[in-house]
Amino acid sequence: MRMLATAACLSLLAAAAFADPLPSWNAGETKSAIIGFVEAVTDPASDEYVTPADRIAVFDNDGTLWSEQPAYFQLFFAIDHVKKMDESQLTSDALKAAAAGDMKALMATGEQGLLEVLAASHTGMSVAAFKDSVASWLDMAVHPTTGMRYDAMVYQPMLELLSFLRDEGFATYIVSGGGIDFIRVFSGGAYNIPVSQVVGSSLVSDYVVENGTPMLMKTPDLFFLDDKAGKPVAINHHIGKRPIFAAGNSDGDFQMLEWTTSGEAPSFGLYVHHTDDDREWAYDREGHIGVLNRGLDDGPERGWYFADMAKDWAVIWPAE
Amino acid sequence: MRMLATAACLSLLAAAAFADPLPSWNAGETKSAIIGFVEAVTDPASDEYVTPADRIAVFDNDGTLWSEQPAYFQLFFAIDHVKKMDESQLTSDALKAAAAGDMKALMATGEQGLLEVLAASHTGMSVAAFKDSVASWLDMAVHPTTGMRYDAMVYQPMLELLSFLRDEGFATYIVSGGGIDFIRVFSGGAYNIPVSQVVGSSLVSDYVVENGTPMLMKTPDLFFLDDKAGKPVAINHHIGKRPIFAAGNSDGDFQMLEWTTSGEAPSFGLYVHHTDDDREWAYDREGHIGVLNRGLDDGPERGWYFADMAKDWAVIWPAE
Repeated sequence: MRMLATAACLSLLAAAAFADPLPSWNAGETKSAIIGFVEAVTDPASDEYVTPADRIAVFDNDGTLWSEQPAYFQLFFAIDHVKKMDESQLTSDALKAAAAGDMKALMATGEQGLLEVLAASHTGMSVAAFKDSVASWLDMAVHPTTGMRYDAMVYQPMLELLSFLRDEGFATYIVSGGGIDFIRVFSGGAYNIPVSQVVGSSLVSDYVVENGTPMLMKTPDLFFLDDKAGKPVAINHHIGKRPIFAAGNSDGDFQMLEWTTSGEAPSFGLYVHHTDDDREWAYDREGHIGVLNRGLDDGPERGWYFADMAKDWAVIWPAE
Repeated sequence: MRMLATAACLSLLAAAAFADPLPSWNAGETKSAIIGFVEAVTDPASDEYVTPADRIAVFDNDGTLWSEQPAYFQLFFAIDHVKKMDESQLTSDALKAAAAGDMKALMATGEQGLLEVLAASHTGMSVAAFKDSVASWLDMAVHPTTGMRYDAMVYQPMLELLSFLRDEGFATYIVSGGGIDFIRVFSGGAYNIPVSQVVGSSLVSDYVVENGTPMLMKTPDLFFLDDKAGKPVAINHHIGKRPIFAAGNSDGDFQMLEWTTSGEAPSFGLYVHHTDDDREWAYDREGHIGVLNRGLDDGPERGWYFADMAKDWAVIWPAE
């Protein structure tokens, strides 16, 4: 009986030792580099060992953990919100274009127009009411070209990477240009990342007490834009430590990868490269979002790795 | 042998069951209420049960976790920094007063003067250099009247409360009007609170790359004042959930306690009341810091508890 139990234990251990922590990643340089890095920083006998408290990993969201085409999903949320507004509330060309679902006309109204659409859906309500509105939308809305739920368009290989890092003692954070209150609605369900580990852009919130009930009200004023050089600033503000692992997909993530890989500890910089026009979208140096120029030019000499979606990923979304 | 081991286990369990989690708190209404609350929210059979992920506890720092008299310890840090500056750098009355250690003259320069002294010690350097400067100061400086290290003037009963809450599955956060980068230097050593769970006031940081080396530079511009109505806003920004336990000592903490105790979940509001002029300092309704008026007036009817330092605390600082 004891021998049988011992044999069962050994076989479990062997299975664990040989189990592939990243089954949706094809064999190749990037997969090997990720696994090698994690093994080195978690091996107490290694020169590269990093104590668990310092194993901080940061991930961009749009285009890194879930898709971002043909427009940021948060913009679709905003447009869907405007579509439900009364005609009398559609007081600008941008709001009218959004309500008509005319993306071309909306884009023609420029940044100011987009801000109007975002303001209509994101402000003048409490944080709690906003989150309820996002949750209802996520439950009903589908992506215009795939017909999938938006939160089903997360990348299976990145879900495996997040789990692998957490299994190895890392704390995983989202550091996104998207809205912090928006992402917190699905960060737990989609990524198993608690709301306290979501960093993002945000509007100014006001604390108001109405009839004895305190509320946090969302105002139209920008509090913090968590993009480019803002990302290291927000990382310091929220986390208070320099990460040792960073993943992004655009030049908006360049400074986050730069900051992460400039410390004294061993570190890893990863770019998700959108190369797969058959299964997802192919884009990098040109386009209206997710532009990746400097990362492609300077990343390799900085020792950063690229996940070539067509080559490195056996699966894109979990449903496949 | 097996019976002996079982007996040893049972006796350990019994000891744990009867061990007082708050040995430095005298028996009384407040101690009983704290223990009763924690037992209720952690008992799966209780109507008041709160899932571990929602057990968030927030603590003010100055006057709640450590002393704050005769002035905020962060101000002593700033003054000690100015004392080491060259005379040619003392370009204002406030800086001259600080360098001379003349608190009365410094206070006479008003808020503007204090900001000048803070700017001299807190800005124009990287976050990393600032933290080094705070760490060196903490290792050398002593309090002007007690002669103790500043980080030895933490409250033993509150250390026990932090540990008790964590043992019962709470995440403990500092939510302070003091500087986030300042507090993070000692939050781990003094309170066993990781830097990611420190929320505080902050200056704008700039991300700059000099000769290929990225740095976060502290500027003189205020980014966020984490006081009064700012505390619930910062709690939402950093933690993303409403706490169920909040402790403070002044009207600057009123909104934090109000927000914490206005949710649907069971909650606890605690005010540390400085009543002990023999062992610490006695102050509440009047004074230049730590003013507690509204809390004393409205706290009782809101069901908040008061830790009367003279009556409820057997010990103030750990060294006693």
